[in-house]
Amino acid sequence: MTTLPTYLSDAAAVDDASIQPLPNSEKIYVTGSRPDVRVPMRAIRQSRTATELGGEENPPVMVYDTSGPYSDPSARVDLRKGLPPLRKTWIEERGDTEQLAGFSSDYSRRRLSDPALDPLRFGHFNAPRKARAGSNVSQMHYARRGIITPEMEFIAIRENLKLQEAKAQGLLERQHPGESFGASIPAEITPEFVRDEVARGRAIIPANINHPEIEPMIIGRNFLVKINGNIGNSAVTSSIEEEVAKLTWGTRWGADTIMDLSTGKNIHETREWLIRNSPVPIGTVPIYQALEKVGGVAEDLSWEIFRDTLIEQAEQGVDYFTIHAGVRLAYVPMTASRVTGIVSRGGSIMAKWCLAHHQESFLYTHFEDICEIMKAYDVSFSLGDGLRPGSIADANDAAQFGELETLGELTKIAWKHDVQVMIEGPGHVPMHLIKENMDKQLRECGEAPFYTLGPLTTDIAPGYDHITSGIGAAMIGWYGCAMLCYVTPKEHLGLPNKDDVKTGIITYKIAAHAADLAKGHPGAQIRDDAMSKARFEFRWEDQFNLGLDPDTARAYHDETLPKDSAKVAHFCSMCGPKFCSMKITQEVREYARDHGLETQEAVSEGMAAKAGEFRQTGSELYHKV
Amino acid sequence: MTTLPTYLSDAAAVDDASIQPLPNSEKIYVTGSRPDVRVPMRAIRQSRTATELGGEENPPVMVYDTSGPYSDPSARVDLRKGLPPLRKTWIEERGDTEQLAGFSSDYSRRRLSDPALDPLRFGHFNAPRKARAGSNVSQMHYARRGIITPEMEFIAIRENLKLQEAKAQGLLERQHPGESFGASIPAEITPEFVRDEVARGRAIIPANINHPEIEPMIIGRNFLVKINGNIGNSAVTSSIEEEVAKLTWGTRWGADTIMDLSTGKNIHETREWLIRNSPVPIGTVPIYQALEKVGGVAEDLSWEIFRDTLIEQAEQGVDYFTIHAGVRLAYVPMTASRVTGIVSRGGSIMAKWCLAHHQESFLYTHFEDICEIMKAYDVSFSLGDGLRPGSIADANDAAQFGELETLGELTKIAWKHDVQVMIEGPGHVPMHLIKENMDKQLRECGEAPFYTLGPLTTDIAPGYDHITSGIGAAMIGWYGCAMLCYVTPKEHLGLPNKDDVKTGIITYKIAAHAADLAKGHPGAQIRDDAMSKARFEFRWEDQFNLGLDPDTARAYHDETLPKDSAKVAHFCSMCGPKFCSMKITQEVREYARDHGLETQEAVSEGMAAKAGEFRQTGSELYHKV
Repeated sequence: MTTLPTYLSDAAAVDDASIQPLPNSEKIYVTGSRPDVRVPMRAIRQSRTATELGGEENPPVMVYDTSGPYSDPSARVDLRKGLPPLRKTWIEERGDTEQLAGFSSDYSRRRLSDPALDPLRFGHFNAPRKARAGSNVSQMHYARRGIITPEMEFIAIRENLKLQEAKAQGLLERQHPGESFGASIPAEITPEFVRDEVARGRAIIPANINHPEIEPMIIGRNFLVKINGNIGNSAVTSSIEEEVAKLTWGTRWGADTIMDLSTGKNIHETREWLIRNSPVPIGTVPIYQALEKVGGVAEDLSWEIFRDTLIEQAEQGVDYFTIHAGVRLAYVPMTASRVTGIVSRGGSIMAKWCLAHHQESFLYTHFEDICEIMKAYDVSFSLGDGLRPGSIADANDAAQFGELETLGELTKIAWKHDVQVMIEGPGHVPMHLIKENMDKQLRECGEAPFYTLGPLTTDIAPGYDHITSGIGAAMIGWYGCAMLCYVTPKEHLGLPNKDDVKTGIITYKIAAHAADLAKGHPGAQIRDDAMSKARFEFRWEDQFNLGLDPDTARAYHDETLPKDSAKVAHFCSMCGPKFCSMKITQEVREYARDHGLETQEAVSEGMAAKAGEFRQTGSELYHKV
Repeated sequence: MTTLPTYLSDAAAVDDASIQPLPNSEKIYVTGSRPDVRVPMRAIRQSRTATELGGEENPPVMVYDTSGPYSDPSARVDLRKGLPPLRKTWIEERGDTEQLAGFSSDYSRRRLSDPALDPLRFGHFNAPRKARAGSNVSQMHYARRGIITPEMEFIAIRENLKLQEAKAQGLLERQHPGESFGASIPAEITPEFVRDEVARGRAIIPANINHPEIEPMIIGRNFLVKINGNIGNSAVTSSIEEEVAKLTWGTRWGADTIMDLSTGKNIHETREWLIRNSPVPIGTVPIYQALEKVGGVAEDLSWEIFRDTLIEQAEQGVDYFTIHAGVRLAYVPMTASRVTGIVSRGGSIMAKWCLAHHQESFLYTHFEDICEIMKAYDVSFSLGDGLRPGSIADANDAAQFGELETLGELTKIAWKHDVQVMIEGPGHVPMHLIKENMDKQLRECGEAPFYTLGPLTTDIAPGYDHITSGIGAAMIGWYGCAMLCYVTPKEHLGLPNKDDVKTGIITYKIAAHAADLAKGHPGAQIRDDAMSKARFEFRWEDQFNLGLDPDTARAYHDETLPKDSAKVAHFCSMCGPKFCSMKITQEVREYARDHGLETQEAVSEGMAAKAGEFRQTGSELYHKV
């Protein structure tokens, strides 16, 4: 049942599949007000429209790029050294942190001094940083003092994706206005807007001072909807090597953050490898590791062990902690009549502790102590929904909503400390009960970002829970959820492998993007319009490349029409050359255009005379192949 | 580019994969008021709950079964003879039809007399039936005269899925009430309710008198949401054999109807094989075949050719026809400024015809003549949305909604003839514009059933359009759509193979079921609750078997934990034995139950004294493996 360490520091190498360039794409950087604010984007080049259809140039489409240096052909990543510390200067410049002599956590020190772990240890440790005594180094604290950090400027540029330039290039003529249910999405994201949203608590920037390698990103309902991918080993399966490969593979396809949910062997060391090599924020559930430390006996957990774990992980650079502080003693028996009881691991651990000690959990009673740790490293809270429903039957019940109210109270306490907070949400919820979740969360938690798992809209499709949950994720994203935690096809069945990670990520990119469109996020429609124009003009390569997964699109096309000539054919494999509706429509359009038939009035006036003409040219209408 | 006929009548055999029994399932039949009303269902047997968790029996769960005789181990299907004509007696008993001496369609007669087609022809033709002069044989006509047909009784039994028995067995303690947006879903479906819904036009029973092989089903917003699977060859690819295998494969996984969209070779003969062997209604788009008959030149289409095609297909037994009669001349130029113009094949063919002739299309001008044909065979209309949007940009525009208004007018004309009607819908629509489609359709078309393709909620994920559209399908199903036309992963890229058909079907079964749950359809939650109970009790085999796709669920589970012992283990591969939240919750539940802690009050009173006890038993809490 246990896994031997298979990942030896000497041999660590980047997963090859994760660094293949995406087709016809260019990694570009947009520079901000200072040269070290260099914001990555991916420019997807397009080919020219065919001469007979107009012959125009099609400008490159900018897309949000989470893949970090891995997809930069000019970068050479050595996993053993970690990614370049992009934010190091920014953190140091602020002058409110100090480099410690060593790790503050007992556990960290013990692991570091164990020679048996040497072969699997990440070798290039830096001593951790911490806020100077009395300082608060959270982005929220800066924001509230009116400071626009380089992180905030970076984010503003990143979220805009060169929207104004795209508009000037004609990439977005008009966009559906959207329905945002009371969000406050501006026409252009400015650094000041980022600051203001963080100051209000309506968005967070997960950015531990000990994770300078990240490319800053933001989570909030007025920004692009984000997605998280879960990875992590278990006692039963998987190695450090696999987990690092899942990280680079997941961010390649669009994971905005990664949660390391390891519960198996060597999770301290695994986490170090992940953080040092992650361009995106890393989240964890510290109680998992704390439980390991007490041999899996929940009752033996204590504030002291948990606290040391928080410090251990904060000094490694974890950007957000899931903490199930809302599982209050009184809520636990409310779950007894549920169909599936408590399904959150963290929630069930704390429930057990509460019952065994007949006390409120130490997460709740020590919440302000936790805030002190969070602000010393700028770790964001992800307040866990330990009582989320694990079945349709249990959705929106008293236990779930009781906990959510407590999370609202805790949010206000965290904000008192200028600590960043997001709130985790369900779970399994039928469609008609999803909006109630979102609305209640916004109300109870003062618009702190919501971060939901799915929700799964039915229980009956194991093997397809990326889809049962993708439906709910798209909807709650539309309603105002800021980040969607992916679900893979293996949910309820096993641990995801790399294929599952990719399927989960792409499904959730779809959900997040569908939500952006429905909210009317400025510029969200650019990529759809470019895709549709390419489709209409039979630019097959552009269709593949503009998609979320060019490899799969190309492979599917090749299955039916493998020849290269098919990729320039003005028809597709579904209908063949004669039936193509796109082709016919182009002719209709040309005809209408040529004859000034743009309006209904023009039709009734002008068409009689022109019918004969059209017939005459009719015999040439089909494209011959 | 052409395909040789590979399907020889002599060798035709049922696709083996389509007749494998589903695990731990039993095909049962519920008999109605007469012995030949025998309604198929699938009973999924469950194992007993483990003794330490209560040891109770778990009754079998009834699920809707579209697979026909293929999944009945006592049936032996010979594709060369076709399925047994279940409805033959019912049709004959009504005494309003006559058996013709031969086919009325010129084209049918020509094909039948061509000896070159003998090897690929279905051999067991029966002469077609037709309404006697002056008779109307539509189910709507009977319904409006107050007649409950055996088809209606069959449907009532089928839709109920033995709900009352399931409730008596404790399979549904309570269900979320749902939000049905003004639907009128009764607590129990009675034959009289079926009749009434059909009489009002709020539901249709696609049931051509020349397709007696079908197991009757209903499409309407007050019934279970249905799904359609498209199959069919094209000029470029696929054979009769493949298409028949896709049919039996599709109905095995849950397709409620199948559309044969063939545009390639031998589509008359392909269709005959499909209809004779289909337990579900078959739909077609007759204009595709009509266009073949005029060599692909849309301008050369005529009412006469189209009429002969309708009769040809009606006498073969097609149950519903997609007819794009709403593409009016004046709407065509409205599509000129679209990003993707006209994307419906039928729509573009008719648009071209309209422009070339400067006339309203013959589908529109001959609509009442078409009604005469429909009622002579009981073919239902599926009024096609020829101007549906093919991109997010084009959603809900004037052309689309103009056509929908015309479809509303045509619905009323069809109803004047007691001809059954459903309405086709989009397409590509961002989430926030989906409900407007549904609401307008209900309003314009007097609640005639809506039948939508997706809608796709974004354009940017070729290769994953089952998911982009599954999101929209679930939502519009919730809002009131009666049938969801599946989209496969190959949409926009190629023709679906068998794997794609299955993926499309399962995705759409998820969407339809999520919609049933959200509408609060009576009993919809039974399967979810059974699944969740099995999950909570670690009954792995039951979890697989209760799912929409037991094979995939089992395979995914085996990938991580291949041993048989894992399937009885009280933990799963995600968390391993120590971390299992389900296990912990069971303990919480036992504790709460044992100590009378069912309410919040009880907790505060009783827990202090009991905490010690719980700790004492704590060391035994984890299940040893």
